Amino acid sequence: MNPSPKLKAFVFDAYGTVFDVHSVADLAEQFFPGQGKSLSQLWRAKQIEYMYLRTLMGRYIPHNENTESALVYACKALGLECDAARRAKLMQAYLRLTPYPEAVGALGALAAHKRAILSVGTKPMLTEMVAHAGMTQHFDKLISVDAVKVYKPHPATYQLVLDELGVARPEVGFVTSNYFDVAGAKAFGFTVFWINRNNALPDELGLLPDHVLTDLAGLKQFA
Amino acid sequence: MNPSPKLKAFVFDAYGTVFDVHSVADLAEQFFPGQGKSLSQLWRAKQIEYMYLRTLMGRYIPHNENTESALVYACKALGLECDAARRAKLMQAYLRLTPYPEAVGALGALAAHKRAILSVGTKPMLTEMVAHAGMTQHFDKLISVDAVKVYKPHPATYQLVLDELGVARPEVGFVTSNYFDVAGAKAFGFTVFWINRNNALPDELGLLPDHVLTDLAGLKQFA
Repeated sequence: MNPSPKLKAFVFDAYGTVFDVHSVADLAEQFFPGQGKSLSQLWRAKQIEYMYLRTLMGRYIPHNENTESALVYACKALGLECDAARRAKLMQAYLRLTPYPEAVGALGALAAHKRAILSVGTKPMLTEMVAHAGMTQHFDKLISVDAVKVYKPHPATYQLVLDELGVARPEVGFVTSNYFDVAGAKAFGFTVFWINRNNALPDELGLLPDHVLTDLAGLKQFA
Repeated sequence: MNPSPKLKAFVFDAYGTVFDVHSVADLAEQFFPGQGKSLSQLWRAKQIEYMYLRTLMGRYIPHNENTESALVYACKALGLECDAARRAKLMQAYLRLTPYPEAVGALGALAAHKRAILSVGTKPMLTEMVAHAGMTQHFDKLISVDAVKVYKPHPATYQLVLDELGVARPEVGFVTSNYFDVAGAKAFGFTVFWINRNNALPDELGLLPDHVLTDLAGLKQFA
């Protein structure tokens, strides 16, 4: 019995869901011994905060620039000497994040459905990251919020899925580990799968996912 | 010599700028010994995050409700037994935050100008907090974002200042300790005073304040 017969497409968040944003921590640790994890965490937190703030102020910039500005802040805040060469190497690492180990298998199990990424990354960022991971054949579309110049969880970003895939809201299974994205996708009307790898609490936003999984492998029961 | 001859109004952020949001930490410490500061900090961080997310999703709720939902999350995340009675007392404390010690004097020194608050708090929240601190006579207007149903740093919130005070953007000196508010007010076109009490770094948003002060007392040189 298929528990979700109406789903026609599985749409994935990229950063933190299919790809591990903290895979940059190794390089950061090489540059700044003992501080790699702290840098990776603050970088990520500021990157997300700046997405929110730039969208709220109507001052969108592409995510490669947004990500670099967050890196600059994080280095300054931690007192790390992050010169242009190191910054370039960290940014390069961000273009080639490591997918979670179960990601390829999980995507393969969903091959009978449309599969796409909806990400805050720009199209060139997504194309390179997916290709470097050897996952190009697993996605019908790589959809970037850059088309609408706002970040998640603005509803215009989720609307892109309908426009690009030609599906209706209830037909979309949306997969994300980020709670802001759970909330946004649920508010928009998707069926939401929360990949909760670290036993996090749901945020108190009055919006809960339809399904909670500990990693992507559990998606195959919904194929 | 007046260094800012064109300023007709001084408009203040409330939470964290005129009033110390962490003055609730004492009551939190009574309820949860050893955890008062952690609770106060996580409560504040989540409160701000939920303001951003609700605005981005088009799901505004009044700030008393937003604040209580953040408190619920913070208690759960820290494993604190925050029953309805304690929650009500903490929320009550949030309505009566302590002003910073220099606030009354600083406002008095600016009495020749229009003075107002622009806050994410609702009008009843602001009215009670200002009255409890004995500061009612120091403000010509208490302006709440509740009128436009979005939170800072959305430009519609800053527009309220022009509408309510009948001044033009360059005539407004905007005073805030919160960097998201520095960025939003500067993007809108105000002259911005950043009250940087804890030697924080400016965020990398391409928006810098016009003046940086360590507390409100320094405003008198601009009177």
